[in-house]
Amino acid sequence: MKINGRPTRTIWLNDDGRTVEVIDQTRLPFAYETLLLQNVEEAAIAIERMVVRGAPLIGATAAYGMALAMADEPSDANLEMASDRLMRTRPTAVNLRWAINRVKSELIDISPKDREASAYKLAARICNEDVEINASIGRNGLEIIKKAATNKPKNAPVNVLTHCNAGWLATVDWGTATSPIYMAHDEGIPVHVWVDETRPRNQGASLTAYELGHHGVPHTVIPDNTGGHLMQHGHVDLVITGTDRTTAAGDVCNKIGTYLKALAAKDNSVPFYVALPSPTIDFALFDGVKDIPIEQRTGDEVSKMTGITEDGSIQTVDIVAEGSPVANYAFDVTPARLVTGLITEAGICDASREGIATLFPDRAGMTD
Amino acid sequence: MKINGRPTRTIWLNDDGRTVEVIDQTRLPFAYETLLLQNVEEAAIAIERMVVRGAPLIGATAAYGMALAMADEPSDANLEMASDRLMRTRPTAVNLRWAINRVKSELIDISPKDREASAYKLAARICNEDVEINASIGRNGLEIIKKAATNKPKNAPVNVLTHCNAGWLATVDWGTATSPIYMAHDEGIPVHVWVDETRPRNQGASLTAYELGHHGVPHTVIPDNTGGHLMQHGHVDLVITGTDRTTAAGDVCNKIGTYLKALAAKDNSVPFYVALPSPTIDFALFDGVKDIPIEQRTGDEVSKMTGITEDGSIQTVDIVAEGSPVANYAFDVTPARLVTGLITEAGICDASREGIATLFPDRAGMTD
Repeated sequence: MKINGRPTRTIWLNDDGRTVEVIDQTRLPFAYETLLLQNVEEAAIAIERMVVRGAPLIGATAAYGMALAMADEPSDANLEMASDRLMRTRPTAVNLRWAINRVKSELIDISPKDREASAYKLAARICNEDVEINASIGRNGLEIIKKAATNKPKNAPVNVLTHCNAGWLATVDWGTATSPIYMAHDEGIPVHVWVDETRPRNQGASLTAYELGHHGVPHTVIPDNTGGHLMQHGHVDLVITGTDRTTAAGDVCNKIGTYLKALAAKDNSVPFYVALPSPTIDFALFDGVKDIPIEQRTGDEVSKMTGITEDGSIQTVDIVAEGSPVANYAFDVTPARLVTGLITEAGICDASREGIATLFPDRAGMTD
Repeated sequence: MKINGRPTRTIWLNDDGRTVEVIDQTRLPFAYETLLLQNVEEAAIAIERMVVRGAPLIGATAAYGMALAMADEPSDANLEMASDRLMRTRPTAVNLRWAINRVKSELIDISPKDREASAYKLAARICNEDVEINASIGRNGLEIIKKAATNKPKNAPVNVLTHCNAGWLATVDWGTATSPIYMAHDEGIPVHVWVDETRPRNQGASLTAYELGHHGVPHTVIPDNTGGHLMQHGHVDLVITGTDRTTAAGDVCNKIGTYLKALAAKDNSVPFYVALPSPTIDFALFDGVKDIPIEQRTGDEVSKMTGITEDGSIQTVDIVAEGSPVANYAFDVTPARLVTGLITEAGICDASREGIATLFPDRAGMTD
């Protein structure tokens, strides 16, 4: 998508055919800066420091980290070392492990002299596959927005509410929940996005607002408390969120607060869609509320807020009464009964065991 | 309630029998400071600058402002001037107008030489009446907490979730939603309060957390997104919020985001109570969603955040992507069907026309 008017991805190979560049997301939305990755250690640190974030982008960065290692020294020992180093960056990231193992298993069987070229080729393929999956999600979701547009007065924008950042900054390009929105906007269908600020980490107010703004998509940032009121008054035509994990029955584990928006959508007959690449479906899980453990993170994310002062310095301030304990649950689970449909790269389906099985019959059967 | 271990009200007459002191709420939660009001102009400025906030406290401050004016010069002209000056401070505050008119109409008919004494007596009465109403709300709501306690394992706290600040800092003492909580705590019933931080203005994280902390009530501050998850997992026994305006049919207009908590409470069979002094019931209104206009406030409240830095200076930072528009709806309406009951000074009733009429038969009849 565009930044300062120029089509941009979150990660790219430089013209030297060797070094890799990423957007430094720790500086967003206050500054657009890129970071040069010249070796596997720099790639590992970029993942650790959350210079890059979002499962697909972490995977892509790790794949390029492997390629950088092979450019340095394509031995078996270094292949092992690079893989170990990258694995340690974010221990629980599924996509990270998947990308590293994919590169490693392809390289281990070929001659060291061919490894550099193969690794770069594979890293590029992993990036392009992510872009293609997200573009497919976008094309599928676009139909929903088009349909919503036909129910609106001519030139009235389709109002989409989204929560957190399931945008292109979390992927290589397009994003998941944002992909149908960008497709609609690029096709000239008027859309307007209500962006939940998404406390405590404010990914909506900082990242989603930033990327929509730079791509020219009309949007408004709102406190997370606002969506219900907007739906009561007909100001929301549909909700599209992302998901971190989806059960085989269609329960959706996403950023904390998603469940509240789904309840409001149900209460006001607003369609509530979830956009996802199919690998986020966990075919072994059926009851999301019972079976998905919810990560609790540091209270500092709630009690401290980082922003930019009038004189342009980035400052962190404490906003909670001194001495008051704080709790910080990162995700919640939206039961399938509240989800209108799942938008995947393979099509749209009901958020149910049967619905998911129609799109992914082989995988749905595996653990049944 | 207690601050630094000492029972405190938000407003009091000093020992000199003339000057009035209030807690400077613009400094909370970062500093506890009081402000001396020596004349009507200082009282007016305290209301305008939101040194005092909350309808009952604004009314009480205005009443003392009238008394201060009478102490200066008890003429008819000054009575008129003081009333005009105070009326202009917060043009839409119903309670403010009510308090000023009550004092004015009592003083106008008596001899100027008696006005000072009468005005101070009436201001004290207005304060004490507020305390008594809130204490009655507390005693009535206490029964609900007591009942919830009997359903818990011995010594397990009753978990109450609240939104915004309907605490004693918004009144003269006790508060509304907090009153049953303080009563329970003071009686030795273990309670724990989940405090919604209440974006955008953070009245929960700053004021509610501050007052609960100083009174020694166990509590935890959470992002507004969290309540649904907590209810899904049985961590909330009941919700108690305040209300700014209540229809004769029991719809509740309260701080934005209240509706989302009510939906989650309904979805998880958690009782959802609203505590209110009966003057907030608007007996002329029946459909809250349709008929109550919702104030939109400046986007700065959303995009800027004020807190305290590590070195102790109070700073304001911008937290939204530059150039992104922001919307700031101050309230939402929770339909009566989601409200388990209304806790008033006259008792608890169903959130319905019939329920309200049982407690307030005369007033409910008036506009029927």
